Amino acid sequence: MKATILCIGDELLIGQTLNTNAQWISQKMNEIGVDVIHHISLSDDKNDIVQSLDTALSTSTVVLLTGGLGPTSDDITKDVLAEYFNAQLVYNEDAFQNIDSIYKLRNREITAEAKEMAYVPDNCIVIQNTLGTAPGMLFRKGDKVIVSMPGVPYEMKAMITDAVMPYLRQHFQLPVILHRSILTAGVGETVLAERLRDFEATKDERVKLAYLPNVGKVRLRLTVKGNDRNQLEKLISEAETVVVNAIEEFIYGFEEDRLEQKIGDMLLDKKWTLGTAESCTGGYIAHLITSVSGSSNYFMGSIVSYSNEVKKEILGVKEETLIQYGAVSEQTVQEMITGALDVLRTDVVIAVSGVAGPSGGTAEKPVGTVCIGVGSKEKTIVKRLSFTNNRERNIQLTGVVSLVMLRKFLLNQLKP
Amino acid sequence: MKATILCIGDELLIGQTLNTNAQWISQKMNEIGVDVIHHISLSDDKNDIVQSLDTALSTSTVVLLTGGLGPTSDDITKDVLAEYFNAQLVYNEDAFQNIDSIYKLRNREITAEAKEMAYVPDNCIVIQNTLGTAPGMLFRKGDKVIVSMPGVPYEMKAMITDAVMPYLRQHFQLPVILHRSILTAGVGETVLAERLRDFEATKDERVKLAYLPNVGKVRLRLTVKGNDRNQLEKLISEAETVVVNAIEEFIYGFEEDRLEQKIGDMLLDKKWTLGTAESCTGGYIAHLITSVSGSSNYFMGSIVSYSNEVKKEILGVKEETLIQYGAVSEQTVQEMITGALDVLRTDVVIAVSGVAGPSGGTAEKPVGTVCIGVGSKEKTIVKRLSFTNNRERNIQLTGVVSLVMLRKFLLNQLKP
Repeated sequence: MKATILCIGDELLIGQTLNTNAQWISQKMNEIGVDVIHHISLSDDKNDIVQSLDTALSTSTVVLLTGGLGPTSDDITKDVLAEYFNAQLVYNEDAFQNIDSIYKLRNREITAEAKEMAYVPDNCIVIQNTLGTAPGMLFRKGDKVIVSMPGVPYEMKAMITDAVMPYLRQHFQLPVILHRSILTAGVGETVLAERLRDFEATKDERVKLAYLPNVGKVRLRLTVKGNDRNQLEKLISEAETVVVNAIEEFIYGFEEDRLEQKIGDMLLDKKWTLGTAESCTGGYIAHLITSVSGSSNYFMGSIVSYSNEVKKEILGVKEETLIQYGAVSEQTVQEMITGALDVLRTDVVIAVSGVAGPSGGTAEKPVGTVCIGVGSKEKTIVKRLSFTNNRERNIQLTGVVSLVMLRKFLLNQLKP
Repeated sequence: MKATILCIGDELLIGQTLNTNAQWISQKMNEIGVDVIHHISLSDDKNDIVQSLDTALSTSTVVLLTGGLGPTSDDITKDVLAEYFNAQLVYNEDAFQNIDSIYKLRNREITAEAKEMAYVPDNCIVIQNTLGTAPGMLFRKGDKVIVSMPGVPYEMKAMITDAVMPYLRQHFQLPVILHRSILTAGVGETVLAERLRDFEATKDERVKLAYLPNVGKVRLRLTVKGNDRNQLEKLISEAETVVVNAIEEFIYGFEEDRLEQKIGDMLLDKKWTLGTAESCTGGYIAHLITSVSGSSNYFMGSIVSYSNEVKKEILGVKEETLIQYGAVSEQTVQEMITGALDVLRTDVVIAVSGVAGPSGGTAEKPVGTVCIGVGSKEKTIVKRLSFTNNRERNIQLTGVVSLVMLRKFLLNQLKP
């Protein structure tokens, strides 16, 4: 079954607003086996909306519209649709109650324009807006379904999830599509592809494998599509087992897991505390770790030692070490770990020092050279790595790789 | 003059890739007075490409295509265009040299598929790809212009800026559109709108003012459109002067200025060094500051004192202060400033402590309560603020507001 997404709004066409709605809706339609064939952004213009609807209905069974439902004069989608479907606008009590309660919550007097939002075409199924004022509308035209939703992302998302997806599942025979995501970090696509060569060669042809790389991480997505849910569940579970076994040491989680969250769980399990000593990342690793709610249960703090003075005076890095080996060296990072364990009094520490760039590189230590270490009182591991020419990228990569090293370090603690 | 943007690629329609190209191209077309009327995303399918081209050419003078130019079998855009414009593919030496040099740089053997990218339709203007392998193509059909570019954003952007915009300016009589951006922080839209009420009421009607808010900052964009460049320059400069005078204290920069960069410039000017002491932001402020290349010239480091132990032992916050007033209090932040000035040995310090959420709030200090301070040996300012229920948003807002406070602090130092 095919679908077209029509996004209405001048703000999209002048480039003021990035259209994230079309991507999100596509993902959701993909999940339930609906093929999106076009995304079309168009202006708040009656003729254009009518023409685009005609075209979309000639190629698609489902047409999903976003935008143009607000209370201002440029929001014309509802009137255009009412005329298109030969409908009268009628008062909807539930919609009014919803609008009224939102205005009361904001301590604002309800306006005439706001009240008008409670009038809806008499031949549509009204989708109440649980997060905003303008209701959504679902029309039928023969075997076709047309849904109009607000352009505000979270309002639209609630309608898609709570109303549109259930409606489509109920009224159409949709194929079953199953996805499984296996999340890896600290390994490139090439290595993963080599490890999975046997799997790719021998897998059931209904199983598709996609590699989705993103700054130091690769998401592996398995997909199966068909009609028999039980059979597909078995098929994708078997495929997942084979993939997991082939690349086990690179996996940090599944589906929507976050690396920093998984590490937090491991620390809580072990009852270990964590600290960081950061030079080139300038606090980015601590920021990643503390982006997790509840991280104060295991994260004690960080010494961002951007200058050599702070490295010496707070972390106790020796003057001789900085002179002999430089700030970007395994030796300095080793002393940063020792110092941070001491002053932050944590069980384990991440320490990094590097040349983030774009300037500051030398022949011996070009931009992108980074030393990353993880250590406890008992054991320390320090690595020297080479990243890119790009400052932002180097900071991000150092963050991800340091977390991957911490994860391995914690796992190894479990071994005798 | 009207334009349509056609983005070709299955990855867009399944929602795997967010389409940022259409927004960026729209902004650029807007700058030179070309009206984008449609964004259309479609699949790598011959019939669909041909049909979409026909439709686009019936409504637009300029059609800009992205995607489908790579070396793999699903990249069919070039062949489809060659057939559409009745062209033969001919070998292009410059394109080949470019592809060859990129493969050599990557130490890879050039493949047959890569060589094929050097063949281009014989009736197009070739746009060499300065950042990748696949060349772009510009076709004329009567008074219409059709440009095909790679989908890789930075390759496409270079072609738009270096080739497409100059070509359109040269071959068409485009209106002059001028923009000026005035960047504010630490102030809401409502206050700005009040301050600018007189301006809005009395301004020349050709001058448009847009408010573009983004996490603690508001970009004010002035736009004028017409034919007489000199007259428009004068008009927009006059408008800018009025706006700047009305809201001067909230402005941190213009056009593409970054707040953290401007603060770095101020610190360099004053030859002052900066440090931070962070609790709820967990290193985010240090990360913002060190995202600026060259920040090691003024940023010494940070104490991320996530735990009370680190607050006490490294920053010297008193046990009694924590007990009597709590970690989130003006008193604690005051002592964090004093401690950080001492251990980081900087001229000025930012210190923050707050309840980022979603848990940890109390009746007295609900989630979103943040104390932010800026201080030197001579003077300290600490404020208590209330932000949102959202952890990520609270961290970001605390970062922006702390930089705004530092900026004011530095400005006040200039006064007698």
